[in-house]
This record gives sequence, structure tokens and C-alpha cells, in this order.
Amino acid sequence: MMASYRGLAVVAGGAGFIGSHLCRALVERGHEILCLDNLQTARPSNLRLLEQLPRFTFVEADVVNPLPEEVTRHSDQITRVYNLACAASPPQYQADPEHTMLTNVVGTHRLLRLAEQAGARFLLTSTSEVYGDPEVHPQRESYRGWVSCTGPRSCYDEGKRAAEALTFDYARLGRAEVRVARIFNTYGPQMHPDDGRVVSNLICQALTGRDVTVHGDGTQTRSFCYVSDMVEGLIRLMESDIDGLEPVNLGNPVELTVNELLERVIAMAPNEAKIVYRPLPQDDPRRRRPDIGRARALLAWEPTVPLEEGLRETFRWFAEEVGETAGETAI
Amino acid sequence: MMASYRGLAVVAGGAGFIGSHLCRALVERGHEILCLDNLQTARPSNLRLLEQLPRFTFVEADVVNPLPEEVTRHSDQITRVYNLACAASPPQYQADPEHTMLTNVVGTHRLLRLAEQAGARFLLTSTSEVYGDPEVHPQRESYRGWVSCTGPRSCYDEGKRAAEALTFDYARLGRAEVRVARIFNTYGPQMHPDDGRVVSNLICQALTGRDVTVHGDGTQTRSFCYVSDMVEGLIRLMESDIDGLEPVNLGNPVELTVNELLERVIAMAPNEAKIVYRPLPQDDPRRRRPDIGRARALLAWEPTVPLEEGLRETFRWFAEEVGETAGETAI
Repeated sequence: MMASYRGLAVVAGGAGFIGSHLCRALVERGHEILCLDNLQTARPSNLRLLEQLPRFTFVEADVVNPLPEEVTRHSDQITRVYNLACAASPPQYQADPEHTMLTNVVGTHRLLRLAEQAGARFLLTSTSEVYGDPEVHPQRESYRGWVSCTGPRSCYDEGKRAAEALTFDYARLGRAEVRVARIFNTYGPQMHPDDGRVVSNLICQALTGRDVTVHGDGTQTRSFCYVSDMVEGLIRLMESDIDGLEPVNLGNPVELTVNELLERVIAMAPNEAKIVYRPLPQDDPRRRRPDIGRARALLAWEPTVPLEEGLRETFRWFAEEVGETAGETAI
Repeated sequence: MMASYRGLAVVAGGAGFIGSHLCRALVERGHEILCLDNLQTARPSNLRLLEQLPRFTFVEADVVNPLPEEVTRHSDQITRVYNLACAASPPQYQADPEHTMLTNVVGTHRLLRLAEQAGARFLLTSTSEVYGDPEVHPQRESYRGWVSCTGPRSCYDEGKRAAEALTFDYARLGRAEVRVARIFNTYGPQMHPDDGRVVSNLICQALTGRDVTVHGDGTQTRSFCYVSDMVEGLIRLMESDIDGLEPVNLGNPVELTVNELLERVIAMAPNEAKIVYRPLPQDDPRRRRPDIGRARALLAWEPTVPLEEGLRETFRWFAEEVGETAGETAI
């Protein structure tokens, strides 16, 4: 039986990939939604689908700027603030590193203040990137990471670490009840095609008959969580009664190499694909796998969608989408 | 022979401990100074001394807020921007962690934009705290640190790491020429008495006949750089022609335990002192020592003031100051 939630949930970044799935799930569970998004990475087709939902309002806004009056005037009704605002793929977040840093720090600060003012609970979507290129496997929440604060990924990685620090300080000061999720690689329908993330890249390339590009030799590992599992984890974390002073990893602990992923994608492709190996970008992590012991214990959560099934769904969605919206670009 | 510098240097945090020594040294070398400070940790007596300098203007301002017109209207004359704005001792920066984070990220952002607008060179004073509780000794600039992004020190540590990330992004984008110094423990006259830093605490306690408190068992090590050496390092770094895409450690590589420091301080004290051991605060680093190979190679810089001499100067200053200004609190 699905729990039912009342009140107004603000979802910043709600028109993005995970955000749009989250908005839908929250509406289904009874929430009214105020979705903020600057449409930096959102797809027009995602937004059109969302706008058909009941109890859903979209406000175009960038959390780097003061929150619009359409949001602040509802502060007495807001019960939950989900902060998913930030481009998450390296080519997107590196295009404007200043904006990425400010989105994470200033944006999180504005949303924390909103949560404080509203007396709402706040959830930050942090990232496995706070572990950098980890020296321990799998990564537990207590691992402090191996992160460069000087390199081209640091606008995102350090921005998220700073956002965590600010969020936990709000909790320590009793200014807001907080939750922090560290999200590992997530995939599924409604990803942005060609956004530089490995699953969407490989599928789009395989579907359109282009060369399939692998960065590095493909022996680096990732663990991929299907988006419905991730959304379930985020909602459980938000609604749990845990002490919010510790972050919680959310991701799929099943680890595979990029080459193994590639094989599965190629097996689904309509035509034979040519594989091209490219240099690994600077500071790209070699290995990444969550220890989800804390999520299991505290939230009774773990991923349930097997990779084969999730990939099939994703492939099917991209097959329709890449055909239908050929030429559509991010708005 | 001392080099002579032209133009207007903005020194944010210029009324603080290191800032006030830096302002004096820059005036002596020919600069005109625009000193910004929110007077959060500055001592009134420091400021009174500074205001007697020629070519020195003080503007009370908090870099968290938009820079005042008294600063921006001079942007065509500004050639250097030194960012020293942030409380640096744990009790001070933890008193308002939100403000600490914003000082580092938003403040650095505002000063970077000023430097960009002015075509000025920008220097960020980062910190050895970006190494956290380090696992390698001594710390080289390439060491990525062992830093908690969830604990009570993270507002400062992660704030500085985020400030570095933003600064290096400005350099990578060609928006400003930058320098980043990672400052290790520094001491000397004009420190704030009882600000929670070990040298000033021990000296003030020993001078006033109070119990001398040691946190932990005193076997944790630190390395202490005399302030005139630090100021020389900062100016050399700013004026050097190095590629600004790497941070540079500045500090004294001579390592000693807190107990060894204590012995020297007690030997100077007028009366016998009682030592009290207190618990180590959360996340207090056990060991900290800079590798200054890069500063030696690039700046031909290393500390020249021996600890005995520096401590004597500092002790003498505190002896006058603690008597004269007993009861004076931070304004």
C-alpha cells in the first residue's frame, strides 16, 4: 500500500531527468507540486508531460536568483522541499562552472531558507561525486573521498560538498529538518539524449548507427540504478524519521564495467555498431559502487529493477524518442 | 632591495590578523590600499594603527553583500585583489557557519568579479584546512585531503575548497589571473587574544596566570609560521609570474607538538602555570606540516624567523596588549 502525503512539495530541478520522475511519483502519492526549473537541461517533452498532471504547477526560475514570489507566497503551505537543481553530467555542468558552483551553494542556501521559513523538511540530492575517485570500495557514507578542489570537475564535486556542509549546519542549528541523499549513477526513460552520461550516450549512439564511444579502456566500473528505484529511495528518505545528520547513499550496488554495459547495449541495437575508444577525461573516477547498508537499514530500501529490465525500458523509450524528436534540442 | 608596486590593492579582511600586517607591508612597498573588513574578528586597536598609514582607506563592508560603491567606483585603478576575508579560528567561524560558508563562496565570487572587471590579479588565501586531518606528511599541494563535508568544521574547510574551485575556474576561463595560497598556522603580534588558536590561547593564559589549557594530550603536531614570513610569501606569490593554476603552500615546515610549544611558552611566563588537559574537539587534525617545495622553487621563499624569536616578539606584544586593553573585546 502506498503512503499518501499531504501539502505542497517544492521540487527544484523538477523538470530534469530524476526530477520529472519524482514529481510524477509525488503527485501520485497525493502531494501538490510546485516545480522550479531554469530549463537548463530539461527537455521540452518532459515538461509537456508534467504539465498534464493534476496538482502540478511549473515556475521557470533559477535558484541562483532570489526565489520568485509565486513560490515564497505559498510558504505557509509548503511541507517538503526537494533540491535537485543542478546539471549533473560533466559536459553540462562544465559549460558554466561558475553557475554550477552558485547553483549548489547559493541555490541550496535559498532553498534551505525557504524550508526554514515554511517549517518544511528539506532534502538535498547530493552525489557519489563527493567521493571523487575513491580509494575504497564500495563507498560508505563515512568515507571522506578523494576529490580535487582545483580541477575541472570541482565546480560540481566541491559545490555539492559545500551544499552538504551548509545543509548539515542548518540541521545542527535547528533551523530545518534535513535529509541528504548521495545519488549514484541513475538511468531510465526521459534522460537527456547525448548529455554525456554513459548509458544515454551508448544507447543513442547504438540506436542511430553512429560509432559507439568509450572513454578510457572501458574497464572502469559503474553501478547503475533504475530511475523508479531512485525515486522510491528519495521519497522514503524524505519521509523517514531518521536523524538527518548523516548522508545516505542511494544507488545500485551491482557493479559492472563500462565494457559489460556496452555489450548489453550493443546486443539490443538494430545494427552492428563500431566501437571507438577515446581518452579518459581528467579526474574521471575509475571505480564507483555504493555501500547501501545504511539505506537498507534505515529505509528498508534497495533497488528492485534488474539491469536487463531497466535497460530494455530505457532502450525502448529512446528508440521512440530519438525517432520522434530528432532535432529537438534542450530548451 | 624591496620591489615597489604601483596601483590600488584591495585587501578584503585587511583589518584582521594577517590582513593588517599585509596592508602595512603593501603600503611600505608603494601600493595604495582599499581595505574592506566587516570587523567581525578585527581588533579596534589594529584598525586604529592602520588608519594612520598613508595611502590607506578603510571601508566597512561584508563581502557576503554586494561590494559598496566606494570600491566598485575605483575599479579602473585596482591592480591587485587580496582575499583574506573569513574568520579563521574554529570558535569564530563556527559561531555562524552559514555566514562562514557564504563569506568563502559568495564573497570570493564577488571579489573575483571585481578582479575580472578591473583586470586585476586576484589572490585567494586558502588554508591547510583543505587537507583536513591528513593521512600523508608533510602535505604537498597535490594531496587531496581527508576532509569531512558533514561535520562542524566543514563550513570553513569546504567553504575554502569551494572558493579554490571557483578561483581556478576563473583562471581556466581566462576571466582573471589568479593565485591561491594555502596558509598553514601563522602567529605573531596583533593576533586576537583568546580567539581559540593555540599560540594566542597559550600565551594569553600564561600571561594572565590562568590555567593553561591543552586540547587532547598535546602530542598532536603543528607548524607555526611567523606573520612577517607569511606576508612576504603572500606578496611574492601575488607578484610572481607563475602559472596560477596550482595552489601554493605557505607555512613553516618546522613541526613541533603542542606540548613542545607549551614548554616554550611556559618558560617565558612570569608565574608558574597550571596545565589542564581538555578533550580534543571533533575533527581536530592530529598532524599538520607543509611541504613548501613549490614555494621554494617558484617564489624562492621560505620562513626566516626562528620560532624562539617569533614567540618572544609575540609574547612581548601580548604582555603589553593584554595589560593595556584588558576588557577590550572584538568590535
